[in-house]
Amino acid sequence: MLKLKAQFMDFEPGIPIVKLNVEDATDLGLRPHDRIEVTYKKTTKTAYIETTSTMIRLGHIGLRKESRRYGIKEGTVIRIRPARRPESLDIIKKKLDDIELKKEEIDKLIRDIDQNRLTDIELGALVAAIYVHGFSERETINTTKAMVKHGEQMAWDKKCIVDKHSIGGVPGNRTTPIVVAIVAAAGLTIPKTSSRAITSPAGTADTMEVFCDVSFNIRQIKHIVNKTNACLIWGGSLDIAPVDDKLLRAEYPLSLDPEGQVIASVLSKKKSAGSKYVLIDIPLGDGAKVSKIEKARNLAKRFKLVGRKLDMHVECAITKGDGPIGRGIGPVLEAIDIVEILEGKGPKDLREKSIELAALMLKMTGHGDEEKARRILDSGRALKKFNEIIVAQNGDPKKDFQKMLGRYKESICADTSGTIEQISNTAISKIARLAGAPKDKGAGVYLYFKKGQKVNRGEKLFDVYAERKHKLKNALDMVNCCRVYIIGPKENMLIEEI
Amino acid sequence: MLKLKAQFMDFEPGIPIVKLNVEDATDLGLRPHDRIEVTYKKTTKTAYIETTSTMIRLGHIGLRKESRRYGIKEGTVIRIRPARRPESLDIIKKKLDDIELKKEEIDKLIRDIDQNRLTDIELGALVAAIYVHGFSERETINTTKAMVKHGEQMAWDKKCIVDKHSIGGVPGNRTTPIVVAIVAAAGLTIPKTSSRAITSPAGTADTMEVFCDVSFNIRQIKHIVNKTNACLIWGGSLDIAPVDDKLLRAEYPLSLDPEGQVIASVLSKKKSAGSKYVLIDIPLGDGAKVSKIEKARNLAKRFKLVGRKLDMHVECAITKGDGPIGRGIGPVLEAIDIVEILEGKGPKDLREKSIELAALMLKMTGHGDEEKARRILDSGRALKKFNEIIVAQNGDPKKDFQKMLGRYKESICADTSGTIEQISNTAISKIARLAGAPKDKGAGVYLYFKKGQKVNRGEKLFDVYAERKHKLKNALDMVNCCRVYIIGPKENMLIEEI
Repeated sequence: MLKLKAQFMDFEPGIPIVKLNVEDATDLGLRPHDRIEVTYKKTTKTAYIETTSTMIRLGHIGLRKESRRYGIKEGTVIRIRPARRPESLDIIKKKLDDIELKKEEIDKLIRDIDQNRLTDIELGALVAAIYVHGFSERETINTTKAMVKHGEQMAWDKKCIVDKHSIGGVPGNRTTPIVVAIVAAAGLTIPKTSSRAITSPAGTADTMEVFCDVSFNIRQIKHIVNKTNACLIWGGSLDIAPVDDKLLRAEYPLSLDPEGQVIASVLSKKKSAGSKYVLIDIPLGDGAKVSKIEKARNLAKRFKLVGRKLDMHVECAITKGDGPIGRGIGPVLEAIDIVEILEGKGPKDLREKSIELAALMLKMTGHGDEEKARRILDSGRALKKFNEIIVAQNGDPKKDFQKMLGRYKESICADTSGTIEQISNTAISKIARLAGAPKDKGAGVYLYFKKGQKVNRGEKLFDVYAERKHKLKNALDMVNCCRVYIIGPKENMLIEEI
Repeated sequence: MLKLKAQFMDFEPGIPIVKLNVEDATDLGLRPHDRIEVTYKKTTKTAYIETTSTMIRLGHIGLRKESRRYGIKEGTVIRIRPARRPESLDIIKKKLDDIELKKEEIDKLIRDIDQNRLTDIELGALVAAIYVHGFSERETINTTKAMVKHGEQMAWDKKCIVDKHSIGGVPGNRTTPIVVAIVAAAGLTIPKTSSRAITSPAGTADTMEVFCDVSFNIRQIKHIVNKTNACLIWGGSLDIAPVDDKLLRAEYPLSLDPEGQVIASVLSKKKSAGSKYVLIDIPLGDGAKVSKIEKARNLAKRFKLVGRKLDMHVECAITKGDGPIGRGIGPVLEAIDIVEILEGKGPKDLREKSIELAALMLKMTGHGDEEKARRILDSGRALKKFNEIIVAQNGDPKKDFQKMLGRYKESICADTSGTIEQISNTAISKIARLAGAPKDKGAGVYLYFKKGQKVNRGEKLFDVYAERKHKLKNALDMVNCCRVYIIGPKENMLIEEI
């Protein structure tokens, strides 16, 4: 244990780093990038060290100015000690050796992740171990419960708290705002938290931000939900299952999303949000996250089982996911689709999918059927509800979205006539991202043709929108080097000639 | 691409970090801890960024002074760009899926590690994948070759370039300086690079530092070896198989040392040092790295095979490793053992093991046998050679080591009479480290009794030395809470009474 005086420095490392004089570090047997426990009053955090012989005086510790929020001032005495070896390391090793983890072990692991006690190397090894050996049912259930415990939980006075989640991988597919509007209009309560895009051109939170604010604290959310039966907010501003976010960060670079981890991730967030009924949308198809029907069915089965163990009624919908859904891809373009559908127009696939999902939620709670969902949408009641939610979230329902589109635009036309055989999910996502989505709200792709439709040479297939010229160029370069639309011969019945 | 001027700063982060002004970072769309490619002339390295608005001026990049070795000066123009997704990610994913990696894939992987293009999360997943699925013979060979390629290589005019390596895990065991002295005196060339301790109370480099300097560049090493046939230096100051060090860092927290990786690690260093004949010491026993004879034999077989593919003659010695070897544990205490043995005295186990290892090296090169090794040691020729090496490395052979011992000392006595059944490698290592070794050169443990010897109650078992009072206390606390010596009944022939 060493006592050091706080010395504020202006740096933003992105990971917890403090700076020590090299002599103080050496005294504790510490080398650069070793970890220490930093204690002030009763708060202890783990941080990496960076050493220097001139920038920090002997007996001092370099901290970010942000540490003032703990009441630390220039010269405040801070205690440090070398970080103890986290117990989790043996648990990770066990998982690497394919030994099923016990409840207590999972609890310790999740606690250590929550307290930042694991390094990135250790987190990388952990997600690799889960990827290789999978999670058993029991491990998945215990992980979900532990993740719920280490985070805030919402409780509601109302009865029918419902929620939905899409496994993702399909561009467009912005059913959530429409489904939320329908089921809330039908009297269900749906406090919906969504994510921002990580690898896709827009997450529901990115799209909702076009309409209104999406960052609220729990008190504000309660207020919005009590008023409108729903909310459509960004989950990242809440401390709901924060361990899940830390695991997602480690899974992201190698796209490791083992089934058990996906289930724990989704259901821990739903449980923390106080949901009783959850609908999982599993898009199926080439380019979607799940491409084989057996895998989709198995995933659905596991979701339902784990849900049951957590006292949630979970239903799953395996849906068509072999191409983009809706016409717009990118925040503003998706917002345009949503408003059109709520106004009784808009792309048919997105409209029908939204109605079907809403219907399943009405059915599972005994509140109606597809007919009812369709009636709520067609009567304008869903639009009314949606506008209520927007207003409650400080938005203006009368925005002109056309004006918000990127000013740089290029149309791509068919270079042959025929039937659209395939639209590549991956290519569309890449193009929209290169064009600037989701950061540039007005950037993205707008599709004129869908799978199965006939197109004539020279007809517009899709538009690319960008807010910056060089981003449009990057997106168009991508258009030229990958097959976005696959157009087959006009009559496409012959498979093979022998 | 952004051009920035170098601004040197005094910091040692332990991982590659450069500092940017927050405005320059934002211009490139970068956030703290994002990675950038830093290019100067034809060299590109990847580094994490830390941002600041005051410590780095706009248009500048904060670099460590060590970057001078690339010819960079204050104000030199450096180009940076956001790091691209490394190709290796797909290769790591493949290994996670248990697909054997091809030569080209291993080459890319090692190149990306060399250029710091992988994050810690990615490295953690990689070592986990290698741990779970192992390395095939072909993968081990290709990894070794690739690691040699990405680093400096030494070449020698002399013929018989020999080397040795111990798999480790046994405290004391400081055979290297003695073996080097014997075989160099016999006319073999042995440019020995060693490591510092990572988890043990002393590495060979830490112990040699008691005698002389251990950090030299390649030109200086050539000079020392040409003059004395040998050197005993720290490998860490050289750029020999640097990828290996990066992998070791990722393996260390979870003690993942998959066999294939251990072989590639050791042999890439030996090959880079220009060795033709290599002796591997595999200590066997409880508490050593290898505890089962079958595993030791299999490891030996693989070492020899991979060595052959790299044009090296590799022999392996499986040696007794179920307890500390020599009396001293800690840099100065080990130095004392070494000098005593070279003077014809000293602990018998360390003496005999050194002679046997030296003999194996003489035999494999056709330069003699055990008789010859013993003669060289007993005649004082080894001592003469050792002193030559020390002088060539700027040392003084007439140092008084007793004066260098820690001034705080405590003796631990037997609390019962009997035969020493076991001395715990792990406990001895922990005690010596807590006492201050290897940083405090004079700290450590000195053993009076070895396994199999009889001891009477009250006789001194071992001394603990420390340079600082509180460290002695920490070490003694550990003595009290773990079983260092296991003393059995005087006559210990009865195993069980039925």
